[in-house]
Amino acid sequence: MSTILTRKQESLIRSLGTRHGRRESGFCLVEGLRTAREAVLLRPDLVELCILREGTEFAEAIEEKTVVVPEKQYETLCGTVNSQGVLLLCREPGYLSVEEPLSDPWVLLLDRVADPGNFGTILRTARAAGLHEIVVVKGGVDPYGEKALRAGMGAQFAMGIRKFESLADAAEHLKKMGVKTFYRTEPAGGNSIFREEGLFENSAVILGNEANGADPLEGSVPLVIPMPGSAESLNVAQAGTVVLFEYVRRAGY
Amino acid sequence: MSTILTRKQESLIRSLGTRHGRRESGFCLVEGLRTAREAVLLRPDLVELCILREGTEFAEAIEEKTVVVPEKQYETLCGTVNSQGVLLLCREPGYLSVEEPLSDPWVLLLDRVADPGNFGTILRTARAAGLHEIVVVKGGVDPYGEKALRAGMGAQFAMGIRKFESLADAAEHLKKMGVKTFYRTEPAGGNSIFREEGLFENSAVILGNEANGADPLEGSVPLVIPMPGSAESLNVAQAGTVVLFEYVRRAGY
Repeated sequence: MSTILTRKQESLIRSLGTRHGRRESGFCLVEGLRTAREAVLLRPDLVELCILREGTEFAEAIEEKTVVVPEKQYETLCGTVNSQGVLLLCREPGYLSVEEPLSDPWVLLLDRVADPGNFGTILRTARAAGLHEIVVVKGGVDPYGEKALRAGMGAQFAMGIRKFESLADAAEHLKKMGVKTFYRTEPAGGNSIFREEGLFENSAVILGNEANGADPLEGSVPLVIPMPGSAESLNVAQAGTVVLFEYVRRAGY
Repeated sequence: MSTILTRKQESLIRSLGTRHGRRESGFCLVEGLRTAREAVLLRPDLVELCILREGTEFAEAIEEKTVVVPEKQYETLCGTVNSQGVLLLCREPGYLSVEEPLSDPWVLLLDRVADPGNFGTILRTARAAGLHEIVVVKGGVDPYGEKALRAGMGAQFAMGIRKFESLADAAEHLKKMGVKTFYRTEPAGGNSIFREEGLFENSAVILGNEANGADPLEGSVPLVIPMPGSAESLNVAQAGTVVLFEYVRRAGY
């Protein structure tokens, strides 16, 4: 355990506050006890530094990588107001290679989901539902940004993320990997998600961007999440949750 | 249509930025085109003022209550950075009287859900699922605060909210109103939400606080949302979504 942070480490940590700084570096910052615990337990290989605010207990800390800093210094490093006193500097888990075989019988495909809270929540929920990866399309949220990590509650360290250039590019690759049906959630109408047979067999379920929905995709099957009430739509993280737990239910739980 | 805001109106609007200021006043501020549209269409009786930033189109504006203000003045009134240029000053919809009969065959009971985003999302999702009210317990989030309104996307103007002093107090009243079974969601175990018969018949499903869960309630039935994956828990808004759409599914959609 050490009490000194090198200047280089300090300036790296500060630069990670900006999206650009983070992107350049290949590192990310993990805050909060629960998320930090998951990161250390799931991917100790990615942890570069455990920075603890003086007095903070963190049983999972990796001793040889731990630095304890005074409160004042900690505050300058950590953007969060009510921080729990644990900050991890981690290497980014990075993306699955597009050539790796798919991990699950179906994939959830996010077409440029833009809100980091929604993205993190979907990843966390997909993990709870027993998926092992998620597919994203370029132009969406940064999966390893601070807010996405916070909402993910450690899911970024448990789940694979596969990224494609566009929805069309994703479809092309996924077809080669065995995906036979592409379902797109459509508020306008389609088969009910609760009645569509084969929904989770060699398929991809597409969720679109919060404002503009998903790109059109030739040959995709429209799917509706029935809304008996008067609401116009569901939040995309809620739509994802309905899909994911319909999968859990059909698996016999 | 007017272009002048009285000093009294201006200072009222500014005071609504604080929870205390809002609570004292009985008013709330609605921002964003979609939410404002819902508020005007669902509860025009509650709208006191439609404040438009110069140049903003808002077809639903109630003409005799509309004030158009220059951009600079608008910015001083509106806390949001990327505001869409519509700000409504509304009277709070307020709570259902505890004596009013229940609106639905079952109730979703939030025991001190504390995050306004979660609360608003649950309300929006309950509306989509066809419920007409939600039950809350004192000590949770302010349903008419800025963030809760934003996440609710207008649901606060469509849904009734019934509020009790405590979970025990809620249970006592709800029993008198015909609720026979109280289910509490428990990560620790219980009957699967997908297999529990009678889940939505004269029942209350309790969702607890994000950090501490729900208070214990004698005689309540533990219910589990199965999580085949390795995640520790679900976000409370996701748990609520699973419950709400299991209701939709069972209704035959």
